[in-house]
Amino acid sequence: MTVTLHVCTTCRAGEPVPEGDIPPGARLQAALTATGAPEGVRIVGVECLSACNAGCAVALSAPGCWSYVYGRMTTDDAPEILAGAAAYAQSADGIVPWRERPVIFRKQSLARIPPLTPIPTETQDV
Amino acid sequence: MTVTLHVCTTCRAGEPVPEGDIPPGARLQAALTATGAPEGVRIVGVECLSACNAGCAVALSAPGCWSYVYGRMTTDDAPEILAGAAAYAQSADGIVPWRERPVIFRKQSLARIPPLTPIPTETQDV
Repeated sequence: MTVTLHVCTTCRAGEPVPEGDIPPGARLQAALTATGAPEGVRIVGVECLSACNAGCAVALSAPGCWSYVYGRMTTDDAPEILAGAAAYAQSADGIVPWRERPVIFRKQSLARIPPLTPIPTETQDV
Repeated sequence: MTVTLHVCTTCRAGEPVPEGDIPPGARLQAALTATGAPEGVRIVGVECLSACNAGCAVALSAPGCWSYVYGRMTTDDAPEILAGAAAYAQSADGIVPWRERPVIFRKQSLARIPPLTPIPTETQDV
């Protein structure tokens, strides 16, 4: 399964960013890329995850899986984020057993969204 | 396009819920269902959207669209939530123009997640 780790690259993490400075979100993406994506994970930058009050934010998603969004991430968290992404990639449905989740994922969840399921179609008597 | 409006039915909205009482999340789901889903929207209850510090929470998702999660919703917000869901259902990609979003959606976004895009495959010289 290939998992996407979205990283909000525009995030200012609630702080003013002087013009010309690299926003904290872009620095987080750089730290994640430099550390290296684990097998089955791709790191994709995105402009705004709409979690501006709780940035830096990252999101994990994959087809048929629950999606998760985490907040208040820093560059120091890159190894833990990637470990969590690796565990997510090894799960069947995106749900990693609680004890196997990095502490930052346990404590800094912003939200999760169920996978999309097919819309039931009406059955007809034949 | 059929859109899913997930409603966290177990949400306690940060308050203690006496045993036997209906949690705020389940009351929100009931209010939404009683008001009635707009065309192209289905209301689906879900146990925990992992936004416990910002409940009640709802999420909008659809194939090929950005997903959105909103928090601090109450039963009074049911009409606005459904109006926002209707606007989402009429969008091409889940992104509703800012001014057409209900105020509670503008101010109480918890996060959004990009749609899943196909994984690029390596091209080979032939």
